[in-house]
Amino acid sequence: MPPAVSPLAVPLPSLAPLAGVRLGAAAAGIRYRGRTDLVMVELTPGTTAAGVFTRNRCPGAPVDWCRAALKGGKARGVVINAGNANVFTGRAGAEAAKASAEAAAALIGCRPREVMLASTGVIGEVLPHERLTAALPALHASLHDDAWEAAARGIMTTDTFPKGAVRRVRIGDTEVTIQGFAKGSGMIAPDMATMLCFVFTDAKLPAAVLQSLLQKGVAGSFNCTTVDSDTSTSDTVLLFATGQAKHPRVPPEGGRMLREFKAALDDLLLDLALQVVRDGEGAQKLVRIDVTGAVSSGSAKRVAMAIANSPLVKTAIAGEDANWGRIVMAVGKAGEPADRDLISVAVGGVWMARQGGVVEGYDEAPVVAHMKGREVAIEVDLGLGRGRATAWTCDLTHGYIDINGSYRS
Amino acid sequence: MPPAVSPLAVPLPSLAPLAGVRLGAAAAGIRYRGRTDLVMVELTPGTTAAGVFTRNRCPGAPVDWCRAALKGGKARGVVINAGNANVFTGRAGAEAAKASAEAAAALIGCRPREVMLASTGVIGEVLPHERLTAALPALHASLHDDAWEAAARGIMTTDTFPKGAVRRVRIGDTEVTIQGFAKGSGMIAPDMATMLCFVFTDAKLPAAVLQSLLQKGVAGSFNCTTVDSDTSTSDTVLLFATGQAKHPRVPPEGGRMLREFKAALDDLLLDLALQVVRDGEGAQKLVRIDVTGAVSSGSAKRVAMAIANSPLVKTAIAGEDANWGRIVMAVGKAGEPADRDLISVAVGGVWMARQGGVVEGYDEAPVVAHMKGREVAIEVDLGLGRGRATAWTCDLTHGYIDINGSYRS
Repeated sequence: MPPAVSPLAVPLPSLAPLAGVRLGAAAAGIRYRGRTDLVMVELTPGTTAAGVFTRNRCPGAPVDWCRAALKGGKARGVVINAGNANVFTGRAGAEAAKASAEAAAALIGCRPREVMLASTGVIGEVLPHERLTAALPALHASLHDDAWEAAARGIMTTDTFPKGAVRRVRIGDTEVTIQGFAKGSGMIAPDMATMLCFVFTDAKLPAAVLQSLLQKGVAGSFNCTTVDSDTSTSDTVLLFATGQAKHPRVPPEGGRMLREFKAALDDLLLDLALQVVRDGEGAQKLVRIDVTGAVSSGSAKRVAMAIANSPLVKTAIAGEDANWGRIVMAVGKAGEPADRDLISVAVGGVWMARQGGVVEGYDEAPVVAHMKGREVAIEVDLGLGRGRATAWTCDLTHGYIDINGSYRS
Repeated sequence: MPPAVSPLAVPLPSLAPLAGVRLGAAAAGIRYRGRTDLVMVELTPGTTAAGVFTRNRCPGAPVDWCRAALKGGKARGVVINAGNANVFTGRAGAEAAKASAEAAAALIGCRPREVMLASTGVIGEVLPHERLTAALPALHASLHDDAWEAAARGIMTTDTFPKGAVRRVRIGDTEVTIQGFAKGSGMIAPDMATMLCFVFTDAKLPAAVLQSLLQKGVAGSFNCTTVDSDTSTSDTVLLFATGQAKHPRVPPEGGRMLREFKAALDDLLLDLALQVVRDGEGAQKLVRIDVTGAVSSGSAKRVAMAIANSPLVKTAIAGEDANWGRIVMAVGKAGEPADRDLISVAVGGVWMARQGGVVEGYDEAPVVAHMKGREVAIEVDLGLGRGRATAWTCDLTHGYIDINGSYRS
């Protein structure tokens, strides 16, 4: 029986056609039965591409492939499969990746290095790429411009709902669209992002600009989220610009003209990252952690992530217990500059502890009510400087153990 | 209803009187009802002392107290309470610590700075030290030399069994004893050790020698164990030498004469540390992780701890799944030098993956049988150098969520 849909799920927005992108999904039988598990995207000639990948030192073969392929800054296609991550598969894994890219390139009529790959699923089993390549011709023939929901569903593994987002902004006087889809539910911790995410825009942007925008956007979104502190070997965020929108030419350095675009991209990436946290394995509550008063923003982020990754904080939240003692413990374990007697902690906007001690007579009722809700807000002020950061996580529940403690989930 | 005793529990060894140590336990009603929660130890004049404490940046008042008090290298008493950690309690916490030490010192007839303190339990509530000091006179009057089990039980919080160990060795031709007790079950991660541990010997050792021995011993024991990656604010290991044994004088630098003593102390500390892991909250399996072939021993330790702290590895073990893919993921997330295509992984002595790929046709039956047992052994060879390290952890089960997801456990 598949797990119930996350209580934190949000509906998939309507994803309309985007000029220069055709896509589709098929059931290749790579691992799952009776569902789609293979997604193909064809991009119009001239599409530029950027990517950010896991910092795990044991990345999958598709990550190796994309890192090399992205040096050209161009892409004509993407092939994504679910059910097998093609990780820790040695030479056979690299060959499976190459064969997949070659098969897609032949159908699209491009060089293999213009095809990006992403795989997610079981680690340590060679990708049965013959099944994948056997399914590609029919899939390619069926590609169309409005199969976005099918694509968002086709890349899911333990996800309980499909994840997508769209933003419309102007470059000059021309409206452009940014939209994408993502998957992820467990093995979610930054450095980087822990899941697969594919974002497309019809803007015309040099690959270097795209790469810079993506790196900054990921730093403030996927890299500020965690489900279980485990960093996947396959994390991939790809951004493609088809160049079909008729806006004024963007200079190589990007700059002011992209201010609105950058803000919308950042917002969209955060939206998708939070959808992944909302689908965190076993998640019942979405948790936002704001740290202020740190000696630097980097220090604030490390403190926020230490809180976000603490099993004791996360189980307390699952138990609807505003246990600020555990929050202080997590601050201290981060190893960052902190003075116990200056720390203040708020839950749901109520400051329970100020400058190192409990706030006598604080109003417990709104805190109790807040903890019963689906979204929990924790604020920590370190009282040392002006560094601030935000991190997002979910609670740690029996559902996480159920999902991950059963054989080969 | 208290949780059942851990299936990994080991019996408390017989702890005989040790010359120079008198101890006892009482019910002071600090938090718990109907059980002992206060332990006092009186040490003979001339006893030397050493300590190692949490690296959490928000330590409790008792840790502050001991750090300052240990500068003298001498101790005449120890007061330990369970139920309240006296952490994040500001000036009131420091005053509660001082009052406790003063009351004990008056009874013993020593300076307050010769009394060591340790508290464990709820964070953020001021220690009701009047209850503690009110109970001390009767407790002090009842101290005797064979109350070791009572002391081991009196310091328990969520522990399901008392923890003790004893070793007898020779210094010169004289037999000396090292024995101690510990508590700990959750909020267990190194840097340092996450629990309270008190070790006593009748050997006569300068405080500096004692400190050096203890630091080395903790590095190879408590600092190589983890239950949940959360580092307590109260971790304390204290070592006392009463000097009652009539062995030849030990030189200030320690040296060869202490070789046997050092080995026994290391072994005893590891024994106690593993008892804490065996009592890890919800633990059903004890897990040993050996990493070899790293570029250095420090690198090996960081990789071993990354595996030991991975929720996905720990839930896989709970599910009796020898999921070596998750082990490789955890190796990669450690950020240490690793070459995916050189890594080998064994579970229960069976090498399932070698040099970056599955071992075709390896015998699964003994692996399956091993995973069903109470003790799981994981070996990882990185194939890079000669660095090696060992870490210990337990599995992550529903029991952990039960214990920590309920209100103010």
